[in-house]
Amino acid sequence: LHVETMAEAQKHVDNLTKPLGALGRLEETFVRLAGITGETVPSLDRKVVVVFCGDHGVTEEGVSAYPSEVTGLMIRNFCDGKAAVNVFARCYGAKVRVVDVGSQLTELPAGVLNRKVRAGTANMVKGPAMSGAEAIQAIRVGLEMAQEMKEQGFQLAAVGEMGIGNTTAAAAVSASLTGRPVEELVGRGTGIDDVALKKKGEAIRRSLEVNQPDPSDPLDVLAKVGGLELAAMTGFILGACAQRLSTVIDGVISTASALAAFRLVPGVRDYLFASHLSEEPAHQVLLKQLELDPLIDASMRLGEGSGAVLSFPLFDGAVAAAREMATFADLGM
Amino acid sequence: LHVETMAEAQKHVDNLTKPLGALGRLEETFVRLAGITGETVPSLDRKVVVVFCGDHGVTEEGVSAYPSEVTGLMIRNFCDGKAAVNVFARCYGAKVRVVDVGSQLTELPAGVLNRKVRAGTANMVKGPAMSGAEAIQAIRVGLEMAQEMKEQGFQLAAVGEMGIGNTTAAAAVSASLTGRPVEELVGRGTGIDDVALKKKGEAIRRSLEVNQPDPSDPLDVLAKVGGLELAAMTGFILGACAQRLSTVIDGVISTASALAAFRLVPGVRDYLFASHLSEEPAHQVLLKQLELDPLIDASMRLGEGSGAVLSFPLFDGAVAAAREMATFADLGM
Repeated sequence: LHVETMAEAQKHVDNLTKPLGALGRLEETFVRLAGITGETVPSLDRKVVVVFCGDHGVTEEGVSAYPSEVTGLMIRNFCDGKAAVNVFARCYGAKVRVVDVGSQLTELPAGVLNRKVRAGTANMVKGPAMSGAEAIQAIRVGLEMAQEMKEQGFQLAAVGEMGIGNTTAAAAVSASLTGRPVEELVGRGTGIDDVALKKKGEAIRRSLEVNQPDPSDPLDVLAKVGGLELAAMTGFILGACAQRLSTVIDGVISTASALAAFRLVPGVRDYLFASHLSEEPAHQVLLKQLELDPLIDASMRLGEGSGAVLSFPLFDGAVAAAREMATFADLGM
Repeated sequence: LHVETMAEAQKHVDNLTKPLGALGRLEETFVRLAGITGETVPSLDRKVVVVFCGDHGVTEEGVSAYPSEVTGLMIRNFCDGKAAVNVFARCYGAKVRVVDVGSQLTELPAGVLNRKVRAGTANMVKGPAMSGAEAIQAIRVGLEMAQEMKEQGFQLAAVGEMGIGNTTAAAAVSASLTGRPVEELVGRGTGIDDVALKKKGEAIRRSLEVNQPDPSDPLDVLAKVGGLELAAMTGFILGACAQRLSTVIDGVISTASALAAFRLVPGVRDYLFASHLSEEPAHQVLLKQLELDPLIDASMRLGEGSGAVLSFPLFDGAVAAAREMATFADLGM
């Protein structure tokens, strides 16, 4: 981070016509954006959300309210511009990029970037979700996407995902990385009932017992109990740090990916912003480990990057305030 | 509320391509907007924030980090379009209306609506802030503004305020209406130090002892320990209910006004939306009494309606989602 620019940005914010600190986390956001870009008043005209898609073998265990096929249907929906993330992106002037890193779709609709590493993970209850080499390949997809987004001139990126079964994988990754008990982390995902919730908790516990992921090795955790889109988001976040690209995380799944990235490279945190607090119980635990505070608290649990894009106008507001507000000197004080 | 329209709107939202309830409070917001307007897919193209301004005699007690004159300077700043609320309003496509209901300014800048009831309240530590007749007159200003905003075609309104000393009045109103101890409700407002915080708590306690406002009579409370802009906002909220105008409240001051309105007419709650959770400790207590949940949690404490306007794009997003998302039937499910 450009610490001198941050100090200048803080000084500028402190002179605006408001009590010191009165814009709360909007001020922190603005100052960090300045530190990332090296501009005292950064610009956020070009925004993008990158949606990484993958399927999950663990759906065999009855952990989701929807069948795996819904991943493919939603990929088509993204391409038609009619999912929640598309609507929010249009509403707030952001672009959408859809990346298939691991879905079971054999024919991809126009508009999807085909970066498929494999057609869905294996059932992690019976063995590793993927190999270490596949996890690294998925991470590389994310790294490259971050570089492409930077090269395309985007100044603010959000990461999101689509993958039926991926709250199960995210809870397993969270349990492994944080050491917290599964029952504290497992949630209802797409909205499962008590019977399915019990099955989901059991599946997570068994995946951890069977695979014994090494909590000190985030790559091992992502490979054994993660997912292709989770690994790709970890890669994107690592790339965001390398590229100095401000990146907004979404709900529990992207935040699990962010924690894996943070454990690999603690410096990624400087480039990360939390958007909203999800209903999924693991989300708060993960955000706390990352020491990131979300701006929105609306009991959402949709994924796709929808919550991250919903926060984009708050970033616009933070920058506009710094750019357009009068200073006390302007008022003759 | 149009309950049949709400049922239709809920049914529509449940068919969209997302898990049931996954957009959380955005869905509740949308359904209630439908209930208010009677339209299954309401429109929010025209938005406004009304900023009520007034001065406070209690500033004599050293309760604020700024002198009373800052109220007038900020009124000029609003008219120049350079305060935080103006910037956010431009950013999110909303209009700003500035209403002087009780400032000490003798000459008003162009653009301020002159509805002055009196030039600031009296020091409530020494007697009532204003007479009952003056409080009713200020309420009428708010009622009329709600009617005007409705007549001007606005579909979503926010209320805000400017008045050095008004977190002191808001805390006194809150203590009286809720019966909670002053030390639980008093906050640092514009950012006072520990010495001034102690003075502020003392001033609130003395104002309640000296005036003995009747907690069961919100008009008595507003007159004795409230403020002109607080009473006007209470009037606006009563008017919003009468006009079926969806209204977003801001921080602790507008929420104290909302609780007074709610105690007078419990039905106002149907037309009210919370925007953000302020740093001021009384805010959470007041929102709980109103049973309203804020969408944004960004540690803001600026007032002016700035937090309410910051939530406008989330309302736009809620409506856009309902209007533009595909249904599961569209995907062939």
